[in-house]
Amino acid sequence: MADIGDLVEADSALEQPSWTRAHASTLPASGAWRPSDPPGERQFLRTFVDRTFVLEGGGQLSDVTVAFETWGTLAPDGSNAILLCHALTGDAHAAGRAGPGQPTPGWWDGLIGPGRVLDTDRFFVVCANVLGGCQGTTGPASPRPDRLGVYGAGFPVVTVRDMVRTQARLADALGIGSWAAVVGGSMGGMQVLEWGIMFPERVRLLVPIATCAAATAQQIAYWSTGRRAIALDPAWHGGDYYDAAPGEGPHRGLAVARMISQITFRTDRVFTARFGRDEVEPLSGQFGMWDRFQVERYLEHHGDKLIRRFDANSYLLLTKAMDLHDISRGRGGLTAALGRIQAPVLAVGVSSDTLYPKYQSQELVRVLRSQGGAARYAEIDSPHGHDAFLLELEQVGRLLAGALEEGDSP
Amino acid sequence: MADIGDLVEADSALEQPSWTRAHASTLPASGAWRPSDPPGERQFLRTFVDRTFVLEGGGQLSDVTVAFETWGTLAPDGSNAILLCHALTGDAHAAGRAGPGQPTPGWWDGLIGPGRVLDTDRFFVVCANVLGGCQGTTGPASPRPDRLGVYGAGFPVVTVRDMVRTQARLADALGIGSWAAVVGGSMGGMQVLEWGIMFPERVRLLVPIATCAAATAQQIAYWSTGRRAIALDPAWHGGDYYDAAPGEGPHRGLAVARMISQITFRTDRVFTARFGRDEVEPLSGQFGMWDRFQVERYLEHHGDKLIRRFDANSYLLLTKAMDLHDISRGRGGLTAALGRIQAPVLAVGVSSDTLYPKYQSQELVRVLRSQGGAARYAEIDSPHGHDAFLLELEQVGRLLAGALEEGDSP
Repeated sequence: MADIGDLVEADSALEQPSWTRAHASTLPASGAWRPSDPPGERQFLRTFVDRTFVLEGGGQLSDVTVAFETWGTLAPDGSNAILLCHALTGDAHAAGRAGPGQPTPGWWDGLIGPGRVLDTDRFFVVCANVLGGCQGTTGPASPRPDRLGVYGAGFPVVTVRDMVRTQARLADALGIGSWAAVVGGSMGGMQVLEWGIMFPERVRLLVPIATCAAATAQQIAYWSTGRRAIALDPAWHGGDYYDAAPGEGPHRGLAVARMISQITFRTDRVFTARFGRDEVEPLSGQFGMWDRFQVERYLEHHGDKLIRRFDANSYLLLTKAMDLHDISRGRGGLTAALGRIQAPVLAVGVSSDTLYPKYQSQELVRVLRSQGGAARYAEIDSPHGHDAFLLELEQVGRLLAGALEEGDSP
Repeated sequence: MADIGDLVEADSALEQPSWTRAHASTLPASGAWRPSDPPGERQFLRTFVDRTFVLEGGGQLSDVTVAFETWGTLAPDGSNAILLCHALTGDAHAAGRAGPGQPTPGWWDGLIGPGRVLDTDRFFVVCANVLGGCQGTTGPASPRPDRLGVYGAGFPVVTVRDMVRTQARLADALGIGSWAAVVGGSMGGMQVLEWGIMFPERVRLLVPIATCAAATAQQIAYWSTGRRAIALDPAWHGGDYYDAAPGEGPHRGLAVARMISQITFRTDRVFTARFGRDEVEPLSGQFGMWDRFQVERYLEHHGDKLIRRFDANSYLLLTKAMDLHDISRGRGGLTAALGRIQAPVLAVGVSSDTLYPKYQSQELVRVLRSQGGAARYAEIDSPHGHDAFLLELEQVGRLLAGALEEGDSP
């Protein structure tokens, strides 16, 4: 497998892509740096160094870097590896604290570590930043191979299948023949399904959460409207904004895009319980057009948080990848596509998810079973909507633990 | 009542506010002008000519014009009048065809006319463009009373209560002591509720449809995100764009705001049935970032349609009015507010409405009944979501007809 790429040490030039560098000064101070607990350390794989990576959408890349983290120790036979696939604005940092160059704590921190559900005394847990992302893996903010600037808007359209192919390169490089499990929510769940279809012999358990076999028109509607909000921001500048001064760039457009999606990630019920009609600027005296209710401040806060750590062009690219997600494309339909899966599947829905409604997970299981597949549906019972897969860690953990015990795990 | 305003003939300077004039050339040709059928004709009431209209939010206006249409003949005792209240992007043209200066056919055309549910042989039907709108009633695109330019962003924040107060002026001017019924959906339904509370002795039947007693945090979230999309458009220019060349102005921002709301007006199910994953630019060869699925073209189409006929500043103002809608404000709570209503209430929900979910209409009825009020809930059974009140005219008509027979109608 040595021909497909080289594991390289952290390359400081890559660790902070130019986009991140430009905005590092705006990152909030998050306390002194401490080693993540449990240990995880960002590493980088250079791959497609000597050959062209022809993407599903016709674009081409070469010299692709994949940023990833691992927890635990790989068994000599490579049998105990679990791949976690992150969602839209996640990254390889599935566990551990925030710190310099790592603006967020691990997105599933509570699940990963010694004695935890993803027990690092037992499993070797891997998480890689997706192709097109902005936390170390090659994306629009990355320098071009010729080092003449960054890709910017010239970065080709990527699909979930392209993401999975880079992850397969990583598995090859790490010496992982097959994953004990591939697990992920939302866009991560799309990768899980593609793993099962593209590499059926390399996965032994699939856990797609709050996801779908193909993006629906409504999902496309929401994501594509967010993309148009980014393009509306004059600072987006056709995607070429990487020479913008610190604090400049298409932040307002990205924030509006995030506001749209943040609404769809949660629910009416929880918004009412949490914010109701509480005001930031009190409704007394003169009412102002831009006076805010608390829910507006909440959305602004989520927009502000995202623009400090996320590249607008990556947002465009990854939401487009989600819209393009359709496991049936070029495979003779949904049933034929799912028929390729050999591993058992635990499809998890969220009771209150309005963005990736649970009927999509249930439908996956229905079709898999109609093919004789070992598939089961389980539900996260939560008022929180789509984001429950990041919030209801106890339920997620219970479902994962059960699947790992019952499934084809080491 | 002569002191409160004068009925004036159509004033061509007002009939096309500067905003409309600037864009008239972009309006689609919609065939030769024919008189509307059934007859309706835009008329104008000038009111608050000699006195200041102090708005609920503290702003002030004077010399307010209210554009309205009527169908049928007012009984000598003024007893047979029905007020229709329009929704966000509706206007006074509830019935009749599109034509010059009237870009849309009547929003409830099928319900109004001789022998129809709103039988113009029997009823005198009135519909007025709301305060802050852009189809004839004073709004941001209107000339200031001093004629030194238009209001623009200087237009004060209006509330649903302010809209209702202008409608009460119209009722006075027309000689309508009390309405046989006040009827409307969405923002129109908010006006219906305020009529019942502000002027309990002037309404004999209330039919609020697909609406709420107070905007929820989720509703505020969607509308306020749309407002931020408008503000993101550099052509919005802080609200001062009325000297923009034809075809210029904050059209892209308004279109994105409309796209957001258009998604919430419909449903996942109908989008899937109608668009699925159909493509505009086929997914073959090179995938393009801005290639569209059909649902995107649909949303763009709705955005395009709106920018041809609607002023972005009115969109800001009216969505803010909806966010500010809370019948309990300053009235000692919801129960006390609803306790003021004397007329029977038929609250209508839409089975699939996700923006103004039916539980809000049901809750209205529950509280009204707990006060001993004559209130009934009825449901439009439709897959279409919020917009069903404009689409399911047969069901709406049946419910209205029943209420007019059973209710306190002439």
